[in-house]
Amino acid sequence: MLKDVQAQQDVRHIPLKHVGIKDLKWPLVLKDPKRGEQHSVAVVQLSVDLPKEQRGTHMSRFVECLKELGGVRPSDLEKFLDNLKEKLGARSAMVKLNFPYFVTKKAPVSGIESYLDVECHFRAEKGEKFVLDLGVDVPVHTLCPCSKEISKYGAHNQRAWARMTVRSQKPIWIEELVEMAEKGASSPLFSLLKRPDEKFVTEEAYENPRFVEDAVRDIALQLNADSRIDWYSVTVESQESIHNHNAFATVEKGEE
Amino acid sequence: MLKDVQAQQDVRHIPLKHVGIKDLKWPLVLKDPKRGEQHSVAVVQLSVDLPKEQRGTHMSRFVECLKELGGVRPSDLEKFLDNLKEKLGARSAMVKLNFPYFVTKKAPVSGIESYLDVECHFRAEKGEKFVLDLGVDVPVHTLCPCSKEISKYGAHNQRAWARMTVRSQKPIWIEELVEMAEKGASSPLFSLLKRPDEKFVTEEAYENPRFVEDAVRDIALQLNADSRIDWYSVTVESQESIHNHNAFATVEKGEE
Amino acid sequence: MLKDVQAQQDVRHIPLKHVGIKDLKWPLVLKDPKRGEQHSVAVVQLSVDLPKEQRGTHMSRFVECLKELGGVRPSDLEKFLDNLKEKLGARSAMVKLNFPYFVTKKAPVSGIESYLDVECHFRAEKGEKFVLDLGVDVPVHTLCPCSKEISKYGAHNQRAWARMTVRSQKPIWIEELVEMAEKGASSPLFSLLKRPDEKFVTEEAYENPRFVEDAVRDIALQLNADSRIDWYSVTVESQESIHNHNAFATVEKGEE
Amino acid sequence: MLKDVQAQQDVRHIPLKHVGIKDLKWPLVLKDPKRGEQHSVAVVQLSVDLPKEQRGTHMSRFVECLKELGGVRPSDLEKFLDNLKEKLGARSAMVKLNFPYFVTKKAPVSGIESYLDVECHFRAEKGEKFVLDLGVDVPVHTLCPCSKEISKYGAHNQRAWARMTVRSQKPIWIEELVEMAEKGASSPLFSLLKRPDEKFVTEEAYENPRFVEDAVRDIALQLNADSRIDWYSVTVESQESIHNHNAFATVEKGEE
Repeated sequence: MLKDVQAQQDVRHIPLKHVGIKDLKWPLVLKDPKRGEQHSVAVVQLSVDLPKEQRGTHMSRFVECLKELGGVRPSDLEKFLDNLKEKLGARSAMVKLNFPYFVTKKAPVSGIESYLDVECHFRAEKGEKFVLDLGVDVPVHTLCPCSKEISKYGAHNQRAWARMTVRSQKPIWIEELVEMAEKGASSPLFSLLKRPDEKFVTEEAYENPRFVEDAVRDIALQLNADSRIDWYSVTVESQESIHNHNAFATVEKGEE
Repeated sequence: MLKDVQAQQDVRHIPLKHVGIKDLKWPLVLKDPKRGEQHSVAVVQLSVDLPKEQRGTHMSRFVECLKELGGVRPSDLEKFLDNLKEKLGARSAMVKLNFPYFVTKKAPVSGIESYLDVECHFRAEKGEKFVLDLGVDVPVHTLCPCSKEISKYGAHNQRAWARMTVRSQKPIWIEELVEMAEKGASSPLFSLLKRPDEKFVTEEAYENPRFVEDAVRDIALQLNADSRIDWYSVTVESQESIHNHNAFATVEKGEE
Repeated sequence: MLKDVQAQQDVRHIPLKHVGIKDLKWPLVLKDPKRGEQHSVAVVQLSVDLPKEQRGTHMSRFVECLKELGGVRPSDLEKFLDNLKEKLGARSAMVKLNFPYFVTKKAPVSGIESYLDVECHFRAEKGEKFVLDLGVDVPVHTLCPCSKEISKYGAHNQRAWARMTVRSQKPIWIEELVEMAEKGASSPLFSLLKRPDEKFVTEEAYENPRFVEDAVRDIALQLNADSRIDWYSVTVESQESIHNHNAFATVEKGEE
Repeated sequence: MLKDVQAQQDVRHIPLKHVGIKDLKWPLVLKDPKRGEQHSVAVVQLSVDLPKEQRGTHMSRFVECLKELGGVRPSDLEKFLDNLKEKLGARSAMVKLNFPYFVTKKAPVSGIESYLDVECHFRAEKGEKFVLDLGVDVPVHTLCPCSKEISKYGAHNQRAWARMTVRSQKPIWIEELVEMAEKGASSPLFSLLKRPDEKFVTEEAYENPRFVEDAVRDIALQLNADSRIDWYSVTVESQESIHNHNAFATVEKGEE
């Protein structure tokens, strides 16, 4: 019988907020409203608290619990955290899953379908109560209102990201957040555009100039209007095409 | 006279928590307790708040203020933020500087000097009052107590990082935090070790096995004993050499 | 009818070696010898040559061809490149797919199954003839022979990567390359090990010390003995646990 | 006396192309044509060949040689490699230094000075003869000729990179390559622009639309006209603002 060093008593009397594993890659199956399910690859972080009396946690049990998880639906994560807490004798547990997700989109004129990849995360924590955050980094297009206003022709524009994290007790589809992000921007992005589509997107962006300040507020207005959302934080960050640095703007809503 | 689009009135009535620039690379001169000063290259983030009535901020003024900063001493950052607030008509301002810093170290037996690179950051914010955080990611060595205990010989060990952020009103040298991190680990790292040094470091680590839970607590004990430090967060993360994922443990101290 | 600007004649008379797209994320289905198939997410690069008379290529056709690809088997890539060449009127075409792949492994004593993630790539090019490279970055464990020899006890060890690229006309499974990498190292890695497994792996590594120079040669010997392989390049890179930098060694075989 | 394990005879008879260290951060002093010198922080790779009879190289000597290097001038790198070869008993040696470099630039209308950061590298190798490559990744602005041509107003534009590597026996300033890259693009980038500058840059880009194919050819024409340059490879890569993937085009010149 090999000695359980982790179970030793600790005399330093310092409780740990988090102890666990991170940067573990793991296959993931997600619910997809159009196709039923979607496969992805997640980077996983799992942790529990550790009371001040115990020397260490049992790291291998995190991976054992993950093996049992199977397909990931956000609604299953509370049960998963309860299981982690029990297996590790902890009072709180946390899981974070970062993964790319593909949204199917139609080009605006030709109607040709293609994917848009969106970096997403679920972060769930269970101490006394269960808290679930859904995050998406939606790539969008912003065109500068100042550059348009002051220039004879043209306006600098660029790829930008709407980085949204929302907290809710109710189900929210990634696709819903992507749509809000795109409405707040000068134009959406697409992986496949034919010439009539490119004309459409170029003109649409020119007709809808947006500072990062504008885009983040237009997204916040939509989130404010959604009664399912208890809290959110949104940052729009644009890779300014006339600079080698980025511009950003952040709105946060207090939890209610 | 070109129109000032940013100065337009905004009717969406959504105040912005942060608006500014990020991912700007900039040369930096830092105070070095041994060599007087040290040059580095920072990644800079600068932001202010934006009241709900104003459409946009004036992004170019951030870079103008940065040009005037010159050499960076943490004690100068409050004045810098006051300047940002004034130039941008804001109630709060924030600066974050991430940069590599070189600590000069002597090999434990041969005494040969070389550098250890440490990723650092300053994060300063000024609303009503001034808050300054200093962060360091110190690379260290951890050797697993469980692996040592249960194995006939050997023990898995690996590179790890002690990621420390401390809040203080008083000056703290990067070198002081590096020393705390190294005392908490199984052994320090060096860029240059001759064979007698390698023997010393190997045996020292074997004699001082540390879980990430141990290392983070041993660092926390030192931070608790330092009366200058008002708040801290420490994570020790080890790149487990028997897994393709990392283990981590976090302690946070409440602000007093 | 919108003008085809790309089709214009170019007077600069400079042929382009590659023109195309990169950093496109795309879902991927791969053959898996144990489970039939495996889903992953690839980062895709596609390109063709461009003759000196033509101004530009038609970028949207790359994504159109990719949409038709469906599940990826290396043996299908030649047909895919022929299709690219035809659609884009080119004399040569190239595809590179980088993706994580999960190998199922059993812990050495307990026999518990878990995944090991391996970063892989296919790179195929078709000009006159078809050339296909398969690359894998296998995470392994190396233990330093010098540190073991000179120290009273212990030996520094660390996570390392065996980065192998092989060229072949015949099918080679990712699993076969992973096995060669692990045989060349001090020990394999696992995502899930119980205490008896950890004891086994610790002792196995101590009994099989390997410099990066040793590991790369032991892998090269296996590749030399495999008659399917026309060319290879192997680098073993270890994240030295006593330094904050890496050690590496590279062997390349001439094409025959 | 501690045993020299690396010096043992190797019976596997496999010569190593490269063996050495990488990912070592190190402070760097560079020549700057305007300011005399410029400080930066490099990521360093150093290697030598290893004959088939020898088990390992002596890794600590790489760092010892680097300590002696002091300020880096490309013209000093041959002597540095000769030193590496001698200290490590090798027939060939290689050094690669990657570092950010700041070019001082004036805004086009206001004339205000600021920095542009450029990622650079030196790669030098000495076997029989000395070969030195200088690489720069210059951030620039490209505006799409197709989007301009087919749209009623506006045109999508974006940040792009001109990634140039040139081989020469004669000194070439980083500033010279930056100038070529900027001439080949739709417009240069600046870290500080006031409104009249932003108007200028926006209009200049609209008047100079460039596909990546155009930009890379316009840079190649300049490199072809420079008699100091023996070989080059140039890739222009643009972060397409209407897609979430990049476009790229590459020209390579044969060595003469």
